[in-house]
Amino acid sequence: MHSAQLLSQLPSYAGLQLSARALADQSIAEMLASDQQRATRFTLEAAGLHLDYSKQLLDDEAMQSLLQLAREAQLPAAIAALLAGEEVNNTEQRPALHTLLRARSAPHQAQRLEEVEHARRAMQAWAERINGGQQQGFSGAVITDVVNIGIGGSDLGPRLVTEALCPFHTDVAVHYAANVDPADLQGTLLNLAPESTLFIICSKSFRTEETLANSLMAREWLRRAGASDNDLDKHFLAITSNLEAAAEFGISPDNCLPMWDWVGGRYSVWSAIGLSCAIAVGWPQFEAFLDGAAMMDQHFAEAPLEANMPVLLSLLEVWYVNFFAAGNHVVLPYDNSLQKLPDFLQQLTMESNGKRVSKAGTGLDYATGPVLWGSAGTMGQHSFHQLLHQGSELCPADFIIPLTTHTGMTQQHSRLVANGLAQSRTLMVGRSEAQARESLTARGVDATRAQELAPHLAMPGNRPNSVITMPALTPQTLGALLALYEHRTYCSGVLWGINSFDQWGVELGKEIGTQILGVMSGESTTADMDPATEQLIARWRAAQ
Amino acid sequence: MHSAQLLSQLPSYAGLQLSARALADQSIAEMLASDQQRATRFTLEAAGLHLDYSKQLLDDEAMQSLLQLAREAQLPAAIAALLAGEEVNNTEQRPALHTLLRARSAPHQAQRLEEVEHARRAMQAWAERINGGQQQGFSGAVITDVVNIGIGGSDLGPRLVTEALCPFHTDVAVHYAANVDPADLQGTLLNLAPESTLFIICSKSFRTEETLANSLMAREWLRRAGASDNDLDKHFLAITSNLEAAAEFGISPDNCLPMWDWVGGRYSVWSAIGLSCAIAVGWPQFEAFLDGAAMMDQHFAEAPLEANMPVLLSLLEVWYVNFFAAGNHVVLPYDNSLQKLPDFLQQLTMESNGKRVSKAGTGLDYATGPVLWGSAGTMGQHSFHQLLHQGSELCPADFIIPLTTHTGMTQQHSRLVANGLAQSRTLMVGRSEAQARESLTARGVDATRAQELAPHLAMPGNRPNSVITMPALTPQTLGALLALYEHRTYCSGVLWGINSFDQWGVELGKEIGTQILGVMSGESTTADMDPATEQLIARWRAAQ
Repeated sequence: MHSAQLLSQLPSYAGLQLSARALADQSIAEMLASDQQRATRFTLEAAGLHLDYSKQLLDDEAMQSLLQLAREAQLPAAIAALLAGEEVNNTEQRPALHTLLRARSAPHQAQRLEEVEHARRAMQAWAERINGGQQQGFSGAVITDVVNIGIGGSDLGPRLVTEALCPFHTDVAVHYAANVDPADLQGTLLNLAPESTLFIICSKSFRTEETLANSLMAREWLRRAGASDNDLDKHFLAITSNLEAAAEFGISPDNCLPMWDWVGGRYSVWSAIGLSCAIAVGWPQFEAFLDGAAMMDQHFAEAPLEANMPVLLSLLEVWYVNFFAAGNHVVLPYDNSLQKLPDFLQQLTMESNGKRVSKAGTGLDYATGPVLWGSAGTMGQHSFHQLLHQGSELCPADFIIPLTTHTGMTQQHSRLVANGLAQSRTLMVGRSEAQARESLTARGVDATRAQELAPHLAMPGNRPNSVITMPALTPQTLGALLALYEHRTYCSGVLWGINSFDQWGVELGKEIGTQILGVMSGESTTADMDPATEQLIARWRAAQ
Repeated sequence: MHSAQLLSQLPSYAGLQLSARALADQSIAEMLASDQQRATRFTLEAAGLHLDYSKQLLDDEAMQSLLQLAREAQLPAAIAALLAGEEVNNTEQRPALHTLLRARSAPHQAQRLEEVEHARRAMQAWAERINGGQQQGFSGAVITDVVNIGIGGSDLGPRLVTEALCPFHTDVAVHYAANVDPADLQGTLLNLAPESTLFIICSKSFRTEETLANSLMAREWLRRAGASDNDLDKHFLAITSNLEAAAEFGISPDNCLPMWDWVGGRYSVWSAIGLSCAIAVGWPQFEAFLDGAAMMDQHFAEAPLEANMPVLLSLLEVWYVNFFAAGNHVVLPYDNSLQKLPDFLQQLTMESNGKRVSKAGTGLDYATGPVLWGSAGTMGQHSFHQLLHQGSELCPADFIIPLTTHTGMTQQHSRLVANGLAQSRTLMVGRSEAQARESLTARGVDATRAQELAPHLAMPGNRPNSVITMPALTPQTLGALLALYEHRTYCSGVLWGINSFDQWGVELGKEIGTQILGVMSGESTTADMDPATEQLIARWRAAQ
């Protein structure tokens, strides 16, 4: 099932270390200038997306070695195993079949696909019912607002998609509340009317602490406004596999849509977890979103390694993490509606690949998933780009640039695109001290001061980045984009020899949280705590 | 003015390298358990904030050496220089006097303080006028909505403060638009009425590309709704030092508030740049916000190094960056209203300390400012915390936990606090393979599978973090918190020997952006571009 050899033991690994050392002294700008074909050779199109990786610190030889590394790690077989529904999530003994959620056919997964299609029809029915103004609240008022209550994968994906597709919004307003901090849902409800608000509770177990607390708060809010227990089905849907707990809460099975254990939370926006998005943009657009992902799935399944977009992005990730010691990766969407993309990708990549043992449970002697962060351009240019250009930390970057706007304001939008392209180019070219000096004297700065200032203006350049463009940000290209990063994440996990589909590291915190809550509520003593936690609990108590 | 010796040349540096190596094998949990005083000794109170750094990978000896390092770097003199208004921003030949903006007295800066107080009174007058319903739009309608147009320091600070202080909001709704992407302001205006909307344009130069583009869009929106050129003063205020450009736009000097070149954008929320916050929360609360910062300033000025909160946080930053090779720092506010704190701190820290040459312009042989990132708890627990607990990357963390809530929902809020404390403790204690095995068998997992799974559940622990608490998040404690990070940033800059107040690295990107925009608009040719940029421009053109 999984490659027996770990990354650092693969035959190509040592050679890549040498290549990396050699390339560190090469100029990307010179490689681009001296090889006019590079700018086309290092590009790729798939599922409506265009990837330009010609500004990466990479030559053909290193690329060949990386591809060889991928073969040695049996990546093609691992891709096939994922898509065929094999048990790639070995520690939880499950497949990871998020691709099935957007599939139109799946000969080897006929039964699961039937379940998926059944759920999809139920989703469609709910979306059309709500969008059609047919769902009424306890007073008979039509539902105008939907609040999604979920956290992590039950929040970040739907929230991102809804926000990213704002030009496609229907008349039903969709909101999100996730945090156990009561201020989150309280703030959301402030401007909503109970009689016309519907909640979608997303929790596979129906036991997620935050989601349950917020659901109880929502139910209380409805009750105070006059809703009876018989009215709850007018105001609640649940996406869950625990029908019993949902029923106990007051939601009948007819109002429940399924989740399956073969879909991880962070890969679940394509399932009924995406219902809030489907309502936000209307069913046909949600289907287009699924189709975009399916197109990327097909590309991922069929394209050879060297022309496979998720594979290339993954090889680039491993290249910088393991051969250049990069501990982070920055994602820079040049589109205001993609502001939440870094948040979504944080969960996708860091929860998937923030692991320290192999699939077989042995410790690893190399780095795995990096910190992923970022923000929408051009905001970051006036914030952290200073560090990207002149800091000591290597931050490999992905620029994501839709080439047109839905706003109708083409001219202002062209400034956005120009800024994105400029940042990508600037990271590469940098500026020498001599150029800085020239630029200063050209501005009339005297020679002494120019000499003094030049080192501060100089920029090393050669900072690697990719540019992903698309003709427009649509449901389809958004679907393709998210699927691209899903598959990149999986490929990197395969190369690192880890299981990208479990998250055992979050368990202990929950246990300790329950213990601390017990101490805070006076139900248990502090016997098992450390002195620092005890003191902090005492401070909390004193503040009440 | 600046320390002649760079960090790596300071006498204590080599010893600290040895201490770090020795401490890497020490258990923080054991240090806490074996020394009951540690939990109190490694805490500190200042300006209403409580810092617990007892879960840092640090002993008394290392702390003494770090303090010695600070003395060797002449940090006390550097702090005094900052606060006295000396020219700490050497490359721009200016002081950095953001502390003056919240000062009540400043014997050595009497004239500047007079200017500050004059501006403060003007701010107060505008805030009270708008909050009092006395400002009317072109139709005679009272102003009900204020839109702040600015980017970077003219956006992130005011946006954070307004959001963080939502329990204190007045009846005037305050909005923010920053991005040059027209979708940003367009989306903001969607639900606003021109006759009752006032814009605050924040741009020191009145030439910031994004801000100017958005201001023109706002003016056009007003004109289309029937506002004449004579009405513009009813709808626009400007925070700028370029009165001429503001007048040309249509804003009279009476509607302009000043900015000074001795306040950097990222340190400017205390100035008239904060007007939108003052309107959002009302003047008395804004003054309390200033007072909180002033309290932290006083602490920073007077406390000895070993009991100086900004100094300690800065020493911890340098400790992990330079002696443990940490390339990032994560900030985890356990308060939903502090969601934007990481964005704000990204600019503050990364624009300030993302530098690669000393104040004198010499290259550095050590790392400087790390990537700062984070998100509000408990959201991150369902996202990237997996990597914090089990990833390969060291992520030193700051937890920020207000101990009470403004929502009235004390019980649900205690869950939030419990989760924050639990994450802090969990990062420290971790879980051994043996403990994981026990926990599995206790749950009824059979021995073979428990053996197999245990390495996946095991967590190394010993991951360092601080906890900053406050009785409540108020204007005052928020002011203290932001001032704390400002001073931490400065201290780290001093230790690294860099200028934290310039940002030369963002210049070139603007120049290249203008060049690319020229090419895109057909005004100039592609002669000077690289083949990759040329191709991307061609793709953009083809998509139009």
